[in-house]
Amino acid sequence: MSHKLYEDALAYHATPTPGKIAIRITKPTKTQRDLSLAYSPGVAEPVRRIARNPEDAYRYTAKGNLVAVITDGSAVLGLGNVGALAGKPVMEGKGVLFKTFADIDVFDIEVNADTPDAFIDTVARIADTFGGINLEDIAAPHCFRIERELRERLDIPVFHDDQHGTAVIAAAGLLNALQLAGKRIEDMRAVCLGAGATGIATMNLLIQLGARRENLLMVDRKGVVHTGREDLNEFKQGFAVNTDRRTLDDACADADVFIGVSGPDLFTTDMLRSMAATPIVFALANPDPEILPELAHKTRDDVIVATGRSDYPNQINNVLGFPYIFRGALDVRARTINDDMLVAAVHALAALTHEPVPQEVLDAYGLEALAFGTDYIIPKPFDPRLIERLPPAIAEAARQSGVARN
Amino acid sequence: MSHKLYEDALAYHATPTPGKIAIRITKPTKTQRDLSLAYSPGVAEPVRRIARNPEDAYRYTAKGNLVAVITDGSAVLGLGNVGALAGKPVMEGKGVLFKTFADIDVFDIEVNADTPDAFIDTVARIADTFGGINLEDIAAPHCFRIERELRERLDIPVFHDDQHGTAVIAAAGLLNALQLAGKRIEDMRAVCLGAGATGIATMNLLIQLGARRENLLMVDRKGVVHTGREDLNEFKQGFAVNTDRRTLDDACADADVFIGVSGPDLFTTDMLRSMAATPIVFALANPDPEILPELAHKTRDDVIVATGRSDYPNQINNVLGFPYIFRGALDVRARTINDDMLVAAVHALAALTHEPVPQEVLDAYGLEALAFGTDYIIPKPFDPRLIERLPPAIAEAARQSGVARN
Repeated sequence: MSHKLYEDALAYHATPTPGKIAIRITKPTKTQRDLSLAYSPGVAEPVRRIARNPEDAYRYTAKGNLVAVITDGSAVLGLGNVGALAGKPVMEGKGVLFKTFADIDVFDIEVNADTPDAFIDTVARIADTFGGINLEDIAAPHCFRIERELRERLDIPVFHDDQHGTAVIAAAGLLNALQLAGKRIEDMRAVCLGAGATGIATMNLLIQLGARRENLLMVDRKGVVHTGREDLNEFKQGFAVNTDRRTLDDACADADVFIGVSGPDLFTTDMLRSMAATPIVFALANPDPEILPELAHKTRDDVIVATGRSDYPNQINNVLGFPYIFRGALDVRARTINDDMLVAAVHALAALTHEPVPQEVLDAYGLEALAFGTDYIIPKPFDPRLIERLPPAIAEAARQSGVARN
Repeated sequence: MSHKLYEDALAYHATPTPGKIAIRITKPTKTQRDLSLAYSPGVAEPVRRIARNPEDAYRYTAKGNLVAVITDGSAVLGLGNVGALAGKPVMEGKGVLFKTFADIDVFDIEVNADTPDAFIDTVARIADTFGGINLEDIAAPHCFRIERELRERLDIPVFHDDQHGTAVIAAAGLLNALQLAGKRIEDMRAVCLGAGATGIATMNLLIQLGARRENLLMVDRKGVVHTGREDLNEFKQGFAVNTDRRTLDDACADADVFIGVSGPDLFTTDMLRSMAATPIVFALANPDPEILPELAHKTRDDVIVATGRSDYPNQINNVLGFPYIFRGALDVRARTINDDMLVAAVHALAALTHEPVPQEVLDAYGLEALAFGTDYIIPKPFDPRLIERLPPAIAEAARQSGVARN
């Protein structure tokens, strides 16, 4: 990234006021009467109603449209464990995206916790404040247990975006890429480089969508995740395959799909050459992908490429998912965000890509034309149809799967 | 309170959107470039800066103007232990007051904690998120230890408004009332009915202002707090007086000042008659005071009365304090809110009452005239001079006492 971008980002954050968010009062406060309704003595009545019926909190407070974006600062962007406080600009930024794209209000909460249990207890104790919880930038493998336990303890949606958010967008793009390549997900052989939060969640979602577990090879720092390894945590164990392949090179030979959620330049042109016909390469390491798109295209002219970057086609960008997934969940007061809802989001995103692109989207990106194809396998973030299509699909899946309360 | 007020309060809270607050984004978000500054990749640079220098959080995030209003729901208004969630309308309302009067942004946080330690740990772990913490509606005696321990553990202001907020306003009104009565605080004999959070904090602040401990009689449910009692918690013990007086009747005889922070109608006309010349009665139980002002005035025409109610003169209203105390503290990034800062707030409030009242304040309250006297011993909440006078006085006290970082 350029020095200029970083200088601009510092100025953007510092002026005219520090940070990116403030509180807006949504009710009148001009007169003594207004304040007697907003606060004592009038506020006593909403308090009594909620004490009698907790569901009334959705009626008389901001809870129902309020999501906590919570981190422990252990895996912030690609910067690692920078600590809770240093994660704050990212969490505020996530709130900005929630508000901009789905009109969801966010309190960012930075938690200093020595242990996963301390983190879990802290979040659980403050959870009544919120209508949903978006966990963010928490390192694997703790993130898995943290999400699982909070989901068990709480009756509001708990969602670790680094896992499921990326998984949803990648899966939607992959369904479209497979269609373009004339392949079926049931037959797909895929390699996932990186066995952290994103990789494991993405592989899980692909299985939900029809992929065969035995056709998925995960590769971590020590090579292929196979049944002979004894160093695997419980989450990787679920993907251990009985195979002779050991290295990333081995894994890529004849593969249909490569998904990188690892680091820069780890995927070589030799690996790409060894893949099957019309290979699909999702090089999602950000900002520096596992292989640059121009190098991939130079190496093979039948490759379909996606990255996490906005300056190339086919950006796998979480912002296509989490605002709308939460919007749909909050709209029906869902108890949780389940796999059915994620699958609904995947299909809604994939389907939208096939429709004609509105002029305002072309204008937003300075494009003359855009149509479903190898350079457009996933919608663009500034597409106003996203908020129209995704939340209803997700809400319907919540209803169908019995987790909606509205 | 009237049925109409409560119906209006429910409607106010429910429509057009539930609750009273939302998030406002303070920076541009219209273009892809804007978002690349607000979030990835640009946001990485503020993260790195804060990781290197935690103080930079005040420069690049909303922390410096962000206060948490936190409750466990154990003593909400006069409603008792309604639980954390039912406290939410009050906490949101407190945020509305912070924003309206001092442009401070508030996240309300409702905490479910079984023990004071669980509450303390929870607040301490999320504290990095905030520039200050306002504890609210937490029952005594736990509130004392909670505040004390959090003050020790954290380097941002921690303030239990039910204690110190009320204490500051009551003390300011009392200084003015004593002046009108021609009495000195050093000679004042005072009775405090109610030995909870507010009562103890108010007595402590009066001592800071010159009152003699042996001239202060606290009265709880079991009568006068005296040295012969063995049922006193450590906070009441500090006010145990060597006296023969046992009942509230005993305590009030010849007293100069009665301060009620207890419940309705507990102060009788006989007690009022037994007080010294030009007695001062602060009947602060809300909404129903220990004695109604009309009854007090009918009983003695030399009495000076204040209540917590907006429909009588001399309202002892916390909103005259906490917004400006935090504004002053945040403006100089104070490490804490200490007694010097509270005393500065008291004197600034008391002094302002002596100045001519601007026309806009008269208009706001539909008054033809208002001047320092027995019916005007404390400023009105909608007085625009409060934000001009109080924060600088409090900030200066922070600097003088060495707790300012700016």
